[in-house]
Formats: sequence, structure tokens, C-alpha cells
Amino acid sequence: MTALDTYLNLRAFVDELARCGLREACTSPGSRSTPLVLSLVREPRLRSTSHIDERCGGFFALGLAKVSGLPVALACTSGTAAANYAPAVIEAHEARVPLIVLTADRPPELRDVGAGQTIDQIKLYGGAAKWFREVDDQPATPERLRWLRGLACRAYWTALEGRPGPVHLNFSLREPLVLEERLPPEEPGGGGRPDGRPWVRRAAAVVAPDHVGLDELAAELGRRPRALVVAGRAERDPQLGAAVASFAEHAGLPLLAEPTSGARRGACAIAHYDALLRDQAWGAARTPELVLRVGDLPTSKPLRQWLHSLSADTLQIALDPEGAWQDPAGAAAMLLPADPRTLLEALTARLPARDGGDWLTAWTAPDRAAASAIAAALDGLSEPRVAAELGARLPPGLTLVVASSMPIRDVETFFPVRADPPRVLSNRGANGIDGTVSTAFGVAAGASGRVVLLIGDVALAHDIGGLLAARRLGLPLVIVLLHNDGGGIFDFLPVATKGDVFEHHVATPHRLDFGHAAALYGLAHEPVSTPGQLNAALDRALAGTGATLISVRSDRKRNVALHRRIWEAVRVAV
Amino acid sequence: MTALDTYLNLRAFVDELARCGLREACTSPGSRSTPLVLSLVREPRLRSTSHIDERCGGFFALGLAKVSGLPVALACTSGTAAANYAPAVIEAHEARVPLIVLTADRPPELRDVGAGQTIDQIKLYGGAAKWFREVDDQPATPERLRWLRGLACRAYWTALEGRPGPVHLNFSLREPLVLEERLPPEEPGGGGRPDGRPWVRRAAAVVAPDHVGLDELAAELGRRPRALVVAGRAERDPQLGAAVASFAEHAGLPLLAEPTSGARRGACAIAHYDALLRDQAWGAARTPELVLRVGDLPTSKPLRQWLHSLSADTLQIALDPEGAWQDPAGAAAMLLPADPRTLLEALTARLPARDGGDWLTAWTAPDRAAASAIAAALDGLSEPRVAAELGARLPPGLTLVVASSMPIRDVETFFPVRADPPRVLSNRGANGIDGTVSTAFGVAAGASGRVVLLIGDVALAHDIGGLLAARRLGLPLVIVLLHNDGGGIFDFLPVATKGDVFEHHVATPHRLDFGHAAALYGLAHEPVSTPGQLNAALDRALAGTGATLISVRSDRKRNVALHRRIWEAVRVAV
Repeated sequence: MTALDTYLNLRAFVDELARCGLREACTSPGSRSTPLVLSLVREPRLRSTSHIDERCGGFFALGLAKVSGLPVALACTSGTAAANYAPAVIEAHEARVPLIVLTADRPPELRDVGAGQTIDQIKLYGGAAKWFREVDDQPATPERLRWLRGLACRAYWTALEGRPGPVHLNFSLREPLVLEERLPPEEPGGGGRPDGRPWVRRAAAVVAPDHVGLDELAAELGRRPRALVVAGRAERDPQLGAAVASFAEHAGLPLLAEPTSGARRGACAIAHYDALLRDQAWGAARTPELVLRVGDLPTSKPLRQWLHSLSADTLQIALDPEGAWQDPAGAAAMLLPADPRTLLEALTARLPARDGGDWLTAWTAPDRAAASAIAAALDGLSEPRVAAELGARLPPGLTLVVASSMPIRDVETFFPVRADPPRVLSNRGANGIDGTVSTAFGVAAGASGRVVLLIGDVALAHDIGGLLAARRLGLPLVIVLLHNDGGGIFDFLPVATKGDVFEHHVATPHRLDFGHAAALYGLAHEPVSTPGQLNAALDRALAGTGATLISVRSDRKRNVALHRRIWEAVRVAV
Repeated sequence: MTALDTYLNLRAFVDELARCGLREACTSPGSRSTPLVLSLVREPRLRSTSHIDERCGGFFALGLAKVSGLPVALACTSGTAAANYAPAVIEAHEARVPLIVLTADRPPELRDVGAGQTIDQIKLYGGAAKWFREVDDQPATPERLRWLRGLACRAYWTALEGRPGPVHLNFSLREPLVLEERLPPEEPGGGGRPDGRPWVRRAAAVVAPDHVGLDELAAELGRRPRALVVAGRAERDPQLGAAVASFAEHAGLPLLAEPTSGARRGACAIAHYDALLRDQAWGAARTPELVLRVGDLPTSKPLRQWLHSLSADTLQIALDPEGAWQDPAGAAAMLLPADPRTLLEALTARLPARDGGDWLTAWTAPDRAAASAIAAALDGLSEPRVAAELGARLPPGLTLVVASSMPIRDVETFFPVRADPPRVLSNRGANGIDGTVSTAFGVAAGASGRVVLLIGDVALAHDIGGLLAARRLGLPLVIVLLHNDGGGIFDFLPVATKGDVFEHHVATPHRLDFGHAAALYGLAHEPVSTPGQLNAALDRALAGTGATLISVRSDRKRNVALHRRIWEAVRVAV
């Protein structure tokens, strides 16, 4: 084994990834990983971005892969470097985002003997990696190069197809790690298949319901006119939201759509179900005969509780592209494994166009009343107002990344129904607040339009190092910070009454002035305190080319009170 | 199951941890973890510190546990929160540091069904956790409370004894998560064993060599007068360093001691072996007949290569308290499982006091010459000079935390032999640069004297969020930053010639002005550029009560050239 073998092997491997369609690699510094990193960075079909903190690199790759729906490669050195990918790898597993994790490792003779920077990397991510392979270090014979080409293809297609997710390849690398000479040009015929085609292409497939299942579902919808559609996060197919809305309009069904579904649009969309369903009597008066769920279940707890409370007479159907058992409310009576767009189109063809009538109006009229009540209650700049402003103002070509915890809930509650909503992305596989900044920068790197991140101060403090992407990669991102000095969501919970320990250990105030963070990482900083200032700052930031941090100060206790006032106003209004 | 059951269960569990000796808990915010966090925080025998980022919390706990040698508890909520502990858990496994990781989880019926913030936490840390238990949620019957007391004891003693390391208990917790009423007082007789004793105490044990082994070793040392001792990281027993130095003096043996061994002291200690052994002829002229290794193998690559190069005639013996197979150089002929202090004392009793004679002088005289040559070469403030100044000036009661990468190597190369060195700690289990700031703050929270951290800019950028401990916990720590805008160690490697991609993807310059970070997190900032300024800033910082960041600017290329000049000066001087 020579360095030349190592680099010839990796050139074939990376060439093949690029032939499959890989376009993005996120690398982190290290010594053992040198051959991996150099091979990726030198491949002209890839854009390689560099990330000092592997945790940030992992989430950045996740953001990139969310935007494109295509696998993104990660490469880091041995040791705990690889462990820092774990949060992003787990989020990718839960959220079904394709990643190709390439970790450098010491060769077997240097493992478990106290050698530096060596940990047990075999199956490091456990069940969160869809596929794991140890790749040993062998001479670059034609047979080996061919095997590596196949391996690269298998990694790429495995990450992408079926249920997308992360794959992990652990590369055993021996010294010397640097090639002194130039890599010889590819030999004719040694460079893979002609015309730039990959060595192996796995044809894509979608899961479709069988005809019997489809006929049965159409019949059930015919028998049960009091039906509705619930649409949650469905990031993979940017066209799905419009398709869901079209289906609901064709069938005349109320459509309870979280903004992450892309389906909060059209005449049937219900925006304020979270506020409305807090009134149990209101919900009980609208018991559906059938619920068709598309995508994840929305975040709203009142919605989940309402679905759970429905009797066995309501037929609840959960549609999932990979037949995942997604039913936290324990309410589904049928799990329907099918690509949602394929299914909804087939269903539309089987169902006559229908007017929603009183059943639809019983949902849409209160939803409009709720919208008015909310608008009336939102004077001054507040957390709900920020979500409402973003919902109303962000242009359709823009992507909004929403942090977990309160931002995702405020966006769910306060985003309006629009004909052309912006795309909304969020890390809702595992719902962590970790890596949010890095994810948003990854989205900013991959999206065709501008990107705005809505985030709270605890999530920003958690991934503060993610801001380094503004300085090192020069990426534009507009961050709208809701700064209430602590985890505002906890003030809504019963634990908030436990004053003795609540404040320091649960709310975790930190008194950070993020203006210093903006200075550290080279972001413009715009503190705002009125809706007018917010909108002006947004306009300036979106017109500029750099990264901006727009800070909105808020108060946790007043924020809870405002939410409660709004819910009460909605209750009274309907 | 009621909230009362949950809290009674956890009270017994935490009470028992405290009876065993637990004194520190590091919590992070969340909802599912509320019962765990409240139970820990309310236990008066514990100090609970709060950490927004679980990765920081994990390394902070690691630092605390390194100082005391006792287990520290960690508690976080479900989901990727727990995955953020992985780097610290892995480092704790490799470095043999006791941790008790308590993760909150949703109960089984909410797992793998798309419920919020739910991932597969079963055996999340794989082989890095020494012991894993799933703890389900059961009524607080007397039988259950008794079982939980035993469980807490088992967790504590398992983390601590034998080969110390992390244990992981995953708590399944059901709503309601908050207890509305007050917890009733402990019932007489229901509160565990009398007199505050733990339910189960596992008596400590040390591994000692059998008499045959000891006699054999003493005989070998008698037969092989050209012997030497190599001492590496041995953080667990702060008395070990002095014991190793005493043994070397008794036996008249050269002692090649990394500062992390605590043994770079006394008449036999050799400080500059890394510089000296770069000259292969010099090393070849000093072939030992026996090498006795205590602790990890030191970091020095020349030392490792020299040990590897010795012929089979040299008897190399690796002493390890738990019989771990620590032999990355592939040089050991005998692995001796024994508590080092016990063994060295027994060996001293069996061996006559011996003058090292010419063999010892062949090491000590060049070492003194090397020290002079180094001192002469160190004009102005440079990275080596900073290490040398810290080595000369830090008082004995102080603890120095040293980052991986260049700082650990500079400390190894430039620390002098001293009668009373400061304690030196470092994360050298997996040698990561991650979590270094947080580890140092944990050490600062636990150490009896002041704590200084020597760190490079990439490691500081990696764990920048760790600085939040300065603001939220008010901990004093003096950070000496070697800022050369990138990973300076890579400039020493062959990859540094690969200009096309080296700078951005391997060196990773970031142009951060850490003065803004000091402002963000409330540290004093002292930029220094001469040795006098460094020492004055150190004196001021050590006299103060807050946290200080002392920044030394450096240049990577000049730093490499200086190291090479120094190695050459040492070669010429001997």
C-alpha cells in the first residue's frame, strides 16, 4: 500500500459519487482524513465547504440535503470528530434526509491500543445509520477500483432511495496520508463507464397503493362526507403542498395544514386549528367521519389531542411514502404506504368534484373569524406578531427555516393562508434545537432564493458556532431572533410554577447580547422593537448580500400572557 | 402511575447517589427531563450546574470528574439532546473518567411512532457506555424504592470502580411531569439505610501484581541496569507523579515524563526527550535494556518511534491499572496489570537504592544542554515561549488544562523539570479538540486552586459556546489563547505543501477576533505580545476572581520555522 494506492482508490470512489449526482461535500479539518478531504475538494463537480466544528458541518449538510433532496457527503477525521456528527445523523435518520458520512479511521492495528485520536467507529451511529460499511485500505488494482465504484454507487442510492437517510462509511487509512507526486491522469477505460454514467444506477421507485386499496379509500371518502385532511411536515417534495391543497379543493374537504406541509393555501386550508381546537366543545361539534393524514403529524398539541379523542367510528388514515408507523396520537386505523402525490392524483381521478358545503364552512368561517381576532390582538411587536409578519410578507421564492420549540409553534399558529406561501423547513425529525443555525446556513447555501431563519435565543446560544459559516463561507442568511432570554416554551408548562429551580435550570436565562456574536462572526446586527422596524430591517437584509441578525427583544411572561389572550379572543370570536 | 410516584422514585434514586458520594450534577433544559432535573437540583448534597448546550454540559462534567476522580451526574431531555453527550461520553470512556448519564425518554408507547423529540436512546452510546439500563416508570412501592436505591448504587460504583467510565441510565417518563403538591417527607425507615450509608457499598479494590510477577520484574531490573521509565498521562491519582519520580530516583533510572504524568520532577526526570530523540543517532546510542511504562504513552512521536525501533532484546513493560492493552507502538513485551503506585512501592522495597551512574548522566546531561539551547532560542513571545513561561511560572497548587493538538505538544516539549509542578490535565483519551473550553470550566468548578487553560484558536472556535459558563456560572478561569488563525499543527505535516486546498480545508483560518467572544460571554480580554505582558496579564488574571482571555497572536509559518530552529539548536547543543 502506498499513498498512490490510497489516492487512486479515493479518486475512483469520489468520481463515482459525482457521477451518481453528488454535488456537495462538507469537510472538517484533521490529519487522518487528509486523503478523503483532498479527494473530495479536488473533484470539480463538487462544491466542498469547510467546517471547523463537525457538529455544525453535520447540520449544514443536513440543510443542504433538505433543500435539494439529494445526498450530501460529510468527511471528518477520526475520534470524537465523528461523534460530533451524531446529532445531525440522528436528525437525518428521523427526518429521512440523505447523507453520506465518510469518517477517517486508523487502521485496525492501531485501534484499541491507545493510539491517538482513535475510538471505536464501527457502527458509531447505531441504528441511525441506514447502512454501514468498513472500507479497508487495499492496493488500487483494477478489481479494487471497480469494487470502489460500485461501493460509491451503493452508498449514494442507499442514502437516497426507499426511506432516505444517512449512510456511514468508515475508511481505514494508513500513512503516508499525503501523496508527494501528482496523481497520474485517469487511464482510458479505467475511469468508469462511458458518457459519465455511474457504475450502477438504481432506478427510482415510488410506493403506490394497490388498486384494491385505492378503490376502498375512494369508497370510504364517498361514504363519509364529513372528512378532512391533516397535512404536516413534508419537506422532500416541494410540489406536494400544492397537490394536497388541490385535492382538498377537488374533494371539498377542510385542510388542516401546518406551514411545513406547504399546503396552507387555497380555499379549503384552515390556518388556526391550533387556537380553535383548544375549545373542546368547538372540536367536539366538528367530529369528522374520516381523517386523511399526509406527512408527519403537525406539531399542535390541541390537534393531536383532538385526533386522539375521536371515537373508533372515525376512520383515521395515515399516508406515508415509506409506510412508516407514524402515529404518536395512537389514532390511525389504516396505515397507507404510498407516495402522497401519486396517491392523491389517483384519488382525484376516482372521486367526483365536490362542494364542501356546510361541513367545509363549519371550518373555514371560524378560521376567518380567528384570523381577524388574532390580527386585532396583535398590537406592537411580539413573538406572535413576528411570525404573523413573516407569514404575510415573505415572498414565495424564499425559504423560511424555523427553529424547534416556540418558533415552530408560533409559525403553526400565526401563519396565514396564502396562495403562494414561502417554503418552510424545520428540523422536526427529532425536534431538537441543536444545529439550527448550521442547518439554516446549509439551506442558504443550497436554496435558489433567499433564506430567513426564525430562531429563539436558546437555540441560537446552542449553535452559536454555526454563525462561523457567515464569516468563513460568506453565505447570506437573514436571522430573525426572538430573544426572551431563556427557553420561552417552558413558561407555558406546569414546571413554570416551580420558582425555586425553574428559572436557572429550566428557563436557563443567559443575558447574552448577541450584538457581540454578530461582531464576532461578521453579521450585520439590527435590533428592532416595532413591526415597522422589523419589516424595514427585513427589507434591507433581503436586499443585501451578507448575513444579518435581526433581534427582537421579548419577555417570557408577557409572551405567555399574550398567547393566552389570543386563544381567549379566538374562543370568544367563534 | 402518578407524578407523585415519579418524584418519590427519583427522590430515592438521587438520595442514594448522594449517599454513595455524588456531589455534582450537570443539567440541561428540557420538558421530558423535568422530574430528573428537579430531583437533582433539589437534593441539597449536590451542586447542580446548568448548561444550555448538552455537549458543553458533558465536557464540563468530564472536567469535574477528572479533578475529583469521582462520578458526576449528567441529566438531559430526550432526543438529540442526549446525542450531544456522545463526544464527552466517548472521551470519558477512552480516558477512564466516571460519569453517570441520566437521559429522559418518552415511554415505550411513544417511541418509533413519530412522537416529538423521540429517538432511539437504547444503548445510544454503544460500547462507550460501560453499563446501560433502561429504567421504566413504575409505582413507588416500597419494593420499587428499594430496587431504585440499589440501582443508584450500582450506577455509582460501576462508573467509579474497575476501569472507570460512563454509565448510562435511560429513564422512561410519563406525563404528568410536574408534581403539583409538595413531596411528602420521607417515611421513617423508608429512607434507606441508617446513618446516611448507601444501600450497597462496593468496596474498592486495586489490581496488584502477584508475587511471582513482582519478583520477576525486580530480577529483570537487576539484570538490566540500562533501564528507563516512561511516564505518560495519569490523571486519576494526583500522587502518582511524585511516586514515579521517587521510584526513578531510588533505582537511578532516567525518567521520560510527559507533564500530564505529574512525574516531570526530581533528579532523574528528562524533560526534552521529544527534541533529543529527533536525532536518531542520539537515540540509538542510548538503547535501553528495559523500559517500564507508567500511564498512557506520551504524545511525542519521536519517543513513540524510538520505542518502536528498539530491538526485541529490550524488554518493554507496560504497566496499566486495569490491564488495558495500551501499546500503540507495538513495542511492549509484557503487559502488567497493576495499580502503579502499589507496584512501584513494592518494587522499591525489593530493589536496592542505586546510583544511575553514566547511564543516567547520558540522559540528564543532554537534557540540561537541551534546556539551555531552548532557552537561548526563545526570544520574544512565541507559542513555545508561552508553554515555557507557563511551565516555569505557574504555582504548584494550580491546575493547567492543556488542549490537544499543538498545546499538548508544546507543553510536552517546553515544560521544565520542576520540584513542584502544577497539575496538568488534558483530554487525551480520544485526543479531540472538542469540548476543551467546557472541560476547563468543569475543572475550574472542581479544583481547589486556580485553573489555567492553554488552547489554540481552532479548539476555542470549536467549543466557543463553552465560554457561556463564564457568564452563567460565574466561574473563574484563565484562558491563554494561542491564536495563529488556523490549525497550526497541520503546518508541520506534509499536507501543508498542498497549497491548493490546504489553507481553506485543512488549516481552516477563520479570522475571528476573540475580543468579541470575550465581550459576548463576559470575560476580561487581554491581548499580549511580549513575555512581560503575558506574565503581567497572567498575574492580574490569577489575582482576580473572574474569567480572563489572554490572547497571544502567532503566525503558523513562523511557528513551524521556530520549532525547527529549536530542534536543530538542541541537536547541535548535545
